[in-house]
Amino acid sequence: MTVVTQGSELRTVLAGHGRPRVLVPTMGALHAGHLALVRRARELAGSAGTVVVSIFVNPIQFDRAADLAAYPRTLEADLAACREAGVAVVFAPEAGAMYGADRSVTVTESLLSRGLCGAARPGHFDGVCTVVLKLFLLSGCEAAVFGEKDFQQLAVIRRMVRDLDVPVAIIGHPTVREPDGLALSSRNVRLSAAQRADAPRLRQALLAARETFKSGVRTAAEVLASARQHLEESALPRIDYLTLVDAESLQAVTQIEGPAVLATAVFYGEVRLIDQVRLEP
Amino acid sequence: MTVVTQGSELRTVLAGHGRPRVLVPTMGALHAGHLALVRRARELAGSAGTVVVSIFVNPIQFDRAADLAAYPRTLEADLAACREAGVAVVFAPEAGAMYGADRSVTVTESLLSRGLCGAARPGHFDGVCTVVLKLFLLSGCEAAVFGEKDFQQLAVIRRMVRDLDVPVAIIGHPTVREPDGLALSSRNVRLSAAQRADAPRLRQALLAARETFKSGVRTAAEVLASARQHLEESALPRIDYLTLVDAESLQAVTQIEGPAVLATAVFYGEVRLIDQVRLEP
Repeated sequence: MTVVTQGSELRTVLAGHGRPRVLVPTMGALHAGHLALVRRARELAGSAGTVVVSIFVNPIQFDRAADLAAYPRTLEADLAACREAGVAVVFAPEAGAMYGADRSVTVTESLLSRGLCGAARPGHFDGVCTVVLKLFLLSGCEAAVFGEKDFQQLAVIRRMVRDLDVPVAIIGHPTVREPDGLALSSRNVRLSAAQRADAPRLRQALLAARETFKSGVRTAAEVLASARQHLEESALPRIDYLTLVDAESLQAVTQIEGPAVLATAVFYGEVRLIDQVRLEP
Repeated sequence: MTVVTQGSELRTVLAGHGRPRVLVPTMGALHAGHLALVRRARELAGSAGTVVVSIFVNPIQFDRAADLAAYPRTLEADLAACREAGVAVVFAPEAGAMYGADRSVTVTESLLSRGLCGAARPGHFDGVCTVVLKLFLLSGCEAAVFGEKDFQQLAVIRRMVRDLDVPVAIIGHPTVREPDGLALSSRNVRLSAAQRADAPRLRQALLAARETFKSGVRTAAEVLASARQHLEESALPRIDYLTLVDAESLQAVTQIEGPAVLATAVFYGEVRLIDQVRLEP
């Protein structure tokens, strides 16, 4: 496994590896969810192809300096996990290798990125689009694998690829969960014991709302109330948003008439967790 | 020569042609300036490579609907000229083939694009960056040739390529001029006879200012006054801007201490012409 820190070096190293190239973009602090993405990438690459993992805590997608500073960094363990998982090349640049001091070009998405996580995090998805496009172009990958946990991110990236004609196949991979249902996230390690014990509530609230939906309810307010009630049974989580959106446009719906997503973000103290469930009428 | 109108078709057709691929992006109404770009592209492509010309009047870079509507369209003549010049593939899409109705992703440049032509044309360079990136990604070109006449556009595109790690070599080609010095432009055909006779004034004004500079003057105000005086000797042109900027950052300078560009845009009636001259201390 080769570890490179410069974009030019990445291109040189990859020129000596087979196609297809499949990229797994990460911010490190790798957990079993990431490793599931890597396994999927290995399948897609086949015996001739090359799996590239990028590890980069992208500063321009953080709107709060405290969140950036607190983001877990575990590079040595990440590299060991990548080696074990059959990754050929890891790209782990410093911020200075990705962004010049006089950087002035940004990729912006103005529709899907405005609600949900984007509402509370201005500039977040522009930062995501910009870094993901750079990683696509630096790696020259044919495909890239993303977790469905960050479903808005996945939708925004698919939109970017469509609108800019980026020649990369975007592969979504189902959310990997702890046995108690909590979605795996690099942020989970920052939860206190009490918060961690309470956190499966997110998933339970969404599943309770899905039961309401399955019982025939199609009014968004009723489905949302079911999830909200479950979340508010504990004093620990503070709801950032709890929204029902169209699965394609990510715009809020009042009646569920097509595929929809019930999505939530909550704060446990300073730690922000997200989860969502799909509702198919 | 193959003419294609869909992005997917462009990729399929180009898969059967040799590398390198060299792109000449145009808005059609091809003149001798464009054909000089095509010749340069032919040299760069060599005997094995492929020259691709795109012909697309990009609606999202026009801030004024009247300018978009009035932009000359001469597709049959353009195709004949491309065939004659040894172009292998022409990509001539309709607007609907380039932009979906719910398009929401844009490439923005926030520094070099703010002054000069960008000041009077909000969104213009975002439209240019977005379409040029799409053309690069659709064609999969290794190199692209642009005229230096649109020097701000060239600087913005170089910046986009740098900041987004786009794997395309950007080749600038010197401005081609009429015998009387007027820079070739697709807009020249819209000038009245009197305006056309007066238009070489742009070039003359810039050259007069360069003489002032060459005589030892380093104060921007004095160099600009020299050009302005020459422009104002005629009642026909209306100055949009006349500015002296740093050749790299495109920010206005008051003293010429490094490579600089004296740039102007004037309106002859509804027709906007641009030109510039480089000043090297």
